[in-house]
Amino acid sequence: MKAMQIKDYGPASDLSLVEAQKPSINEDQILVQVGAAGVNPVDTYIRSGTNNYSANFPHTPGSDGAGTIAELGAKVVGFEIGQRVYFSRNLTGSSAEFAACAATHTYPLADALSFEEGACVGIPYTTAHRALFGRANGEAGDKVLVHGATGAVGIATVQLALAAGMEVVASSGTAAGADLLRQQGVTNIIMHNEADHLAPYQSLETGFDIIIEMLANHNLDQDLKALAFSGCVSVVGNRGTIEINPRDLMARDASVVGVALANVKPAELALIAKSLRPLFEKGVLKPVIRHSYPLTELAQAHEDVLKSGALGNLVIRIN
Amino acid sequence: MKAMQIKDYGPASDLSLVEAQKPSINEDQILVQVGAAGVNPVDTYIRSGTNNYSANFPHTPGSDGAGTIAELGAKVVGFEIGQRVYFSRNLTGSSAEFAACAATHTYPLADALSFEEGACVGIPYTTAHRALFGRANGEAGDKVLVHGATGAVGIATVQLALAAGMEVVASSGTAAGADLLRQQGVTNIIMHNEADHLAPYQSLETGFDIIIEMLANHNLDQDLKALAFSGCVSVVGNRGTIEINPRDLMARDASVVGVALANVKPAELALIAKSLRPLFEKGVLKPVIRHSYPLTELAQAHEDVLKSGALGNLVIRIN
Repeated sequence: MKAMQIKDYGPASDLSLVEAQKPSINEDQILVQVGAAGVNPVDTYIRSGTNNYSANFPHTPGSDGAGTIAELGAKVVGFEIGQRVYFSRNLTGSSAEFAACAATHTYPLADALSFEEGACVGIPYTTAHRALFGRANGEAGDKVLVHGATGAVGIATVQLALAAGMEVVASSGTAAGADLLRQQGVTNIIMHNEADHLAPYQSLETGFDIIIEMLANHNLDQDLKALAFSGCVSVVGNRGTIEINPRDLMARDASVVGVALANVKPAELALIAKSLRPLFEKGVLKPVIRHSYPLTELAQAHEDVLKSGALGNLVIRIN
Repeated sequence: MKAMQIKDYGPASDLSLVEAQKPSINEDQILVQVGAAGVNPVDTYIRSGTNNYSANFPHTPGSDGAGTIAELGAKVVGFEIGQRVYFSRNLTGSSAEFAACAATHTYPLADALSFEEGACVGIPYTTAHRALFGRANGEAGDKVLVHGATGAVGIATVQLALAAGMEVVASSGTAAGADLLRQQGVTNIIMHNEADHLAPYQSLETGFDIIIEMLANHNLDQDLKALAFSGCVSVVGNRGTIEINPRDLMARDASVVGVALANVKPAELALIAKSLRPLFEKGVLKPVIRHSYPLTELAQAHEDVLKSGALGNLVIRIN
């Protein structure tokens, strides 16, 4: 089968198209013929060996994907050959014609979603759900800042928060991003490249109950000063260190929590998938695809996904 | 009545003994003849106007105290004249012969405790309880680091954690502090002035479920690396800023929470007082008094309470 692979930790340009052996599965696994693969920042961290991520080589990138079930392990129940599914945390890499997937991390794909859309669910929507509900205990009426809202996780968070009846403020770095957020139904948009963009929110009266933070190393210090009483910052993304004043947490009875999808147990993942599906079927949630690349352009997608000014999810078309 | 007062924000040496008017109380208040006053770091922040604390002048320092009820407001129920009580967040300052106290922040004093011991309960034990249970959700079996354990809040935390069946590791800066912790029943003591003193705990397998942190601006970065999966740092004390790596929180599904007694609502304060009292009566909890000063030496107590190498609570004898 065709796959994009890299032989050792290195730049995206080291990725090349190879003819690889079709994966074999064990009795607990599912072989999926991949229709489309999602591209997420974590894929680039694994490829380059940063942030303590590691890979086996040759490495086929890609955690997220969607497609049809080609083979079923003997002990797998609740699925059938030919069924449309999406998955995350697969075993062999989704940038390939087939991927071996753990049955515990594979879910039915909503009829309303294409494979390309389905490839946007695993990491972005599950992370957004975990950050908003599982970690920050969000509920209707909460005032939520989605800080860096135009990327794949950001848009998923905006859609989930609006669907749950929260008051959403979202930040963008570009006019195009602000337009995208308005299309998503956000009426209160702030531009995070403007100085003091959080100043109007930095009092207990005007602060946020929840801040979903995509770049904590840039924003956490000012975020803490923009929390309401007992507010919470959910850290979803981070690329370095930052100086904070812990007294900001004391003054507000506030908290900072880390969010990482790899830490979520299968039972909670299954509940999240179950709660997302009807919202996809009804169109309440709908992935935004910024760009779709052929498999051979995976290197370009790895470079693009780390650029600022994101406008949704990047996906790779495969079958 | 005699009181120690200061006329404007300033150093401890500006405190002087004055003959002040005995406070009058309204219908919701209690007048307490103060037997002893507790001295806590927050008293010095209020006196000097740091960390956003403010005072009215002339200012009589002191939030904590214990004594007997001299007068009762008309609407106050559940108390009687002559009753032994302790209090916190009083209205006129506890470094005086009498203090006007809010009935919502005054509690019966355990028979087992002297007034000097009772003056150690309000801030130290209530803060420790809130940090350990209210904010960090501590329970039997948790592995807890009390970081800076020899001060008033530290010892209260150690006693509460041991009484609750937690596995306690405590840090001290001095040999005398380590001796005090051993007397409290702590078998695992680490010296926080030694380089890399947290290194043995900085893995998911050996990390702490809870860290109670008295000086977050010094320790928070290394604390985050010493948490177990889903661990929590409760920030009780802080005197500046610190650089952290938020990825440490993501990797562990961890959290940092701020703790400040001023943020705790009366209903929770009452529950904490109710849960502490039988433990004081049984001797399971017992305040450690490092030094007791006459009222005229309040300035010295304000200087001593900020020094490192604390060995328990400081109190002022009054009546």
